[in-house]
Amino acid sequence: MTLGKDDIGHHISQQYNQELENLRSHVLHMGGVVERQIADAISALEDGDTQLAASVVGGDLQVNALELNLDEECSRILARRQPAAGDLRLIFAVIKTVTDLERIGDQAERVARTVLELANVEPGRSRPTMRHMGDLARRLLNKALDAFARMDVAAALEVEREDLAVDKEYEAILRQLMTYMMEDPRTITWALNLIWAARALERIGDHSKNIAEYVIYLVQGKDVRHVSIEERERQVQGDMPAQPPTV
Amino acid sequence: MTLGKDDIGHHISQQYNQELENLRSHVLHMGGVVERQIADAISALEDGDTQLAASVVGGDLQVNALELNLDEECSRILARRQPAAGDLRLIFAVIKTVTDLERIGDQAERVARTVLELANVEPGRSRPTMRHMGDLARRLLNKALDAFARMDVAAALEVEREDLAVDKEYEAILRQLMTYMMEDPRTITWALNLIWAARALERIGDHSKNIAEYVIYLVQGKDVRHVSIEERERQVQGDMPAQPPTV
Repeated sequence: MTLGKDDIGHHISQQYNQELENLRSHVLHMGGVVERQIADAISALEDGDTQLAASVVGGDLQVNALELNLDEECSRILARRQPAAGDLRLIFAVIKTVTDLERIGDQAERVARTVLELANVEPGRSRPTMRHMGDLARRLLNKALDAFARMDVAAALEVEREDLAVDKEYEAILRQLMTYMMEDPRTITWALNLIWAARALERIGDHSKNIAEYVIYLVQGKDVRHVSIEERERQVQGDMPAQPPTV
Repeated sequence: MTLGKDDIGHHISQQYNQELENLRSHVLHMGGVVERQIADAISALEDGDTQLAASVVGGDLQVNALELNLDEECSRILARRQPAAGDLRLIFAVIKTVTDLERIGDQAERVARTVLELANVEPGRSRPTMRHMGDLARRLLNKALDAFARMDVAAALEVEREDLAVDKEYEAILRQLMTYMMEDPRTITWALNLIWAARALERIGDHSKNIAEYVIYLVQGKDVRHVSIEERERQVQGDMPAQPPTV
């Protein structure tokens, strides 16, 4: 019960093939837009660039519109094509993925709003950098989308593992900011704002992990949500060819 | 293009009718379990009841299992019955709703985990009560589920409005806790834990609002996500009978 990239879209109707292919590429397009939003939000945060932050806030409208379009596209295919088996799983995975992408967009917007808030707060002291954590989170999304594009279970499992690094980085930043607050209570408002931003980046990791889980479901028909990493690696390996497919 | 409760489930196949009816009632069952989780989490928080908190943490497994079951049920109906129009919108709304219910469950678990954390933190001073905010959030979920059960757009719109009250309560609690932190830095760890709990309750309001939006989509076939409250009330009223239906 495994499914390769080539198993989707082999239908008598050429147009149906094209619709499924379009759906996949629209998801990747939305993913790309969201990735850009994250990258810009991080740059805005690191450079205190309020103009860039404002453009991220404005850009969330585009992300929202992409969500609605993709949901409609899924509805249309379900109604017209009555997909079965692997195609149905694809639609299902897309419906779920799109929700997570939209919420990642919200988190990027949240980081950008923090930048605008911080512009009004006297900087108490030099900030801990969140560049590394932000890059980790963005790379995680990139990898999850890549796993989706290539239907690559091994890459999806890596997303799971790497999310732990984001969590660890978040904990470190949180601890540092708490120390600042304890040392100098005048930094509390400032530090809390930074904590919101760090938490938003941490949530991006969680949503990317969700997307990776849908990929595993899509490829294997197995729902691995709410299963420990070790357990799902075991489950998945039972099904994998001895050599992971090269792409 | 409006849809009443009775428009769903009138099919030649008696079994199909039953499947849709079961799906609806399983969503409401999951909603009830999640509501119970919220209520218990709030009681555990207010009474510092670590035993109850631990049972909420354990109970999240049940919520997760209900999510997987409901997703599978939706997949099965999509594959076998190839639903169209209103039935398809029902399935779509259920797929989305179930994700939000599961995440509300996660937030209840987060509150419960805070209770366990707090048990190890010396209480610096008397806590601001979150009973009111928690009750508001729980009632919001209850109302959203009620709107789903009765396909009641007016009730769904009320959820939107009432979420503002949850946000306002959250802001007040946040301000109070920040004041504590500034007055006495020794309270910072304790106060931050309480802020996590308050934020989790606030998120429950957001997820309930999402569910209310799916109800409007389900009944009217109009997607009102990412539209301002005023705009959607205007849109919806254009479609509503002069007298809202009594239930």
